Amino acid sequence: MNLELVILGCHSAIPSINRNPTSQFLTIHSRQFLIDCGEGTQVRLRENGIGLGRINHILISHLHGDHFFGLTPLLSSLHLLGRNKEIHIYGPHGLKDIINLQMKAQGSWLSYPLIFHELDFTKKSQLYEDDKIIVHSFPVKHRIACCGFLFEEKALPRNIIGEKIKELSIPFLDIKGIKNGNDWEDENGKTHNNHSLTTKAPESLSYAFCTDTLPLENLQDYVYNPSLLYHEATFTNKHKDRAKQTHHSTAEQAANIAKGIKAGNLILGHFSTRYLDYSDFLLESKPIFPKVYLAKDGTKYCIKHQNPKSLEIE
Amino acid sequence: MNLELVILGCHSAIPSINRNPTSQFLTIHSRQFLIDCGEGTQVRLRENGIGLGRINHILISHLHGDHFFGLTPLLSSLHLLGRNKEIHIYGPHGLKDIINLQMKAQGSWLSYPLIFHELDFTKKSQLYEDDKIIVHSFPVKHRIACCGFLFEEKALPRNIIGEKIKELSIPFLDIKGIKNGNDWEDENGKTHNNHSLTTKAPESLSYAFCTDTLPLENLQDYVYNPSLLYHEATFTNKHKDRAKQTHHSTAEQAANIAKGIKAGNLILGHFSTRYLDYSDFLLESKPIFPKVYLAKDGTKYCIKHQNPKSLEIE
Repeated sequence: MNLELVILGCHSAIPSINRNPTSQFLTIHSRQFLIDCGEGTQVRLRENGIGLGRINHILISHLHGDHFFGLTPLLSSLHLLGRNKEIHIYGPHGLKDIINLQMKAQGSWLSYPLIFHELDFTKKSQLYEDDKIIVHSFPVKHRIACCGFLFEEKALPRNIIGEKIKELSIPFLDIKGIKNGNDWEDENGKTHNNHSLTTKAPESLSYAFCTDTLPLENLQDYVYNPSLLYHEATFTNKHKDRAKQTHHSTAEQAANIAKGIKAGNLILGHFSTRYLDYSDFLLESKPIFPKVYLAKDGTKYCIKHQNPKSLEIE
Repeated sequence: MNLELVILGCHSAIPSINRNPTSQFLTIHSRQFLIDCGEGTQVRLRENGIGLGRINHILISHLHGDHFFGLTPLLSSLHLLGRNKEIHIYGPHGLKDIINLQMKAQGSWLSYPLIFHELDFTKKSQLYEDDKIIVHSFPVKHRIACCGFLFEEKALPRNIIGEKIKELSIPFLDIKGIKNGNDWEDENGKTHNNHSLTTKAPESLSYAFCTDTLPLENLQDYVYNPSLLYHEATFTNKHKDRAKQTHHSTAEQAANIAKGIKAGNLILGHFSTRYLDYSDFLLESKPIFPKVYLAKDGTKYCIKHQNPKSLEIE
């Protein structure tokens, strides 16, 4: 039930050797999401031991090539592998036509249903919900229409006290109700207050993905206190003007954003390929937001319920 | 003036770790061509030390994704790098729309002119000609419209005998004419027969690219005696039925084709990713056509005028 984020690519614009364009594989409450899909993502998934069969939901933030050029190739490979289970794509208007045109040119159609959900760039919108998690998109400010994404665990059940189950011989079938906050009546008709049987629920984990964008003054209207924020820092302050001009952020701006929305942890990414040394990104951000980390291709970042404030790096 | 072929990718269908889809970079008489452009080709070019600025002519054999998914990403990167020199694309009908749609979605158009030449799948057709080389396409037999390509040096000038230049004090300006077969008149009015001044011209080099296709009985109508033939061998005889069904060739069939058109050398490629060991490809082909080689990603194959029958591997 940990929150796990595998960075498949964290570089902007032009792919290069060991500098892959944006893609991430998120696991939250055992649900899995592919976020953005730059060129070569299918090979990055294999390199990171993530079987292509695990892809069921793909979110595409916007239609700059470094965020979607790998999507049709991935969908095409899943077709060749004989997949028949549906895939949900959450992406901008126009993406469906791009996929369709390329598949049509190949003289084939996909072996599985593709269910397309068009993003709304005007407001925070629910993309997905089940009994455990909820996913929203929210508009960010880029040169073309672009969304960030917020993945949240719903309120978790309270922890039942193990000794109480034994002591009171609580039947297995009653445990779910107690975890959900119900009081419990024993076989003698005595009511046990829920708080005598449980301790408080673990903190729900959440992840916000926020690229490509200018620093958003109103981000807290969409995201507040996430366990983990991935925010773009395409540039350092040295290229602050370039950041503004291209609708991107600097490391310092990203740190201020993380502080403003009271993020638990911050990962910076979407680095311009002009940088060979990333130390300035940390130097600019750490004084403002100490729990900052630099994204690295092929790295897994993990937050556990036992220690929800801490980010572990594998 | 050597013929150099860098294999950027020689695997079919589904890209995997160290198994890249089709792309090749050909140098013939100092002219350079990118042939097919599977996903990730721009990074393969960098890995092989081929600057993206060297790309001026791109040929796309057909619209299966493993042969063109890397094209729009490559063109997009050249745009981001600020290119302004034109690029010629030789490809199937429909490819232009695929590029246009994706560029339009990005909200930008290319910074350089894209000159599109549509392939003719009905007959052998000239794609390019200058004073030194000529390039043709020719139809092959695949599930969708597909072309092979033939690159040929034109007849080369005769070799002038170095000692004669010195002995007869032949002026520099007269040398080109002598190399082209002219007799030469010295300052005393004496005519020197061309054959007394020159030795025969080096053999012109040529390269034929032939994938994806069933073995073509009529290939010799399009290609005869090429210095080098790259022919697909997606399968071994073990999967001969599958080859026929999917309109591909086996290693044995490719060897027979090379023998039939009297190729100088044969490179097999477009291997199905089902094979982990390629020894059967050689076992099947070498008894039929001894000068056979297996394509390998990131390898350069070279034929020199001094030794036009020999293929050197770097």
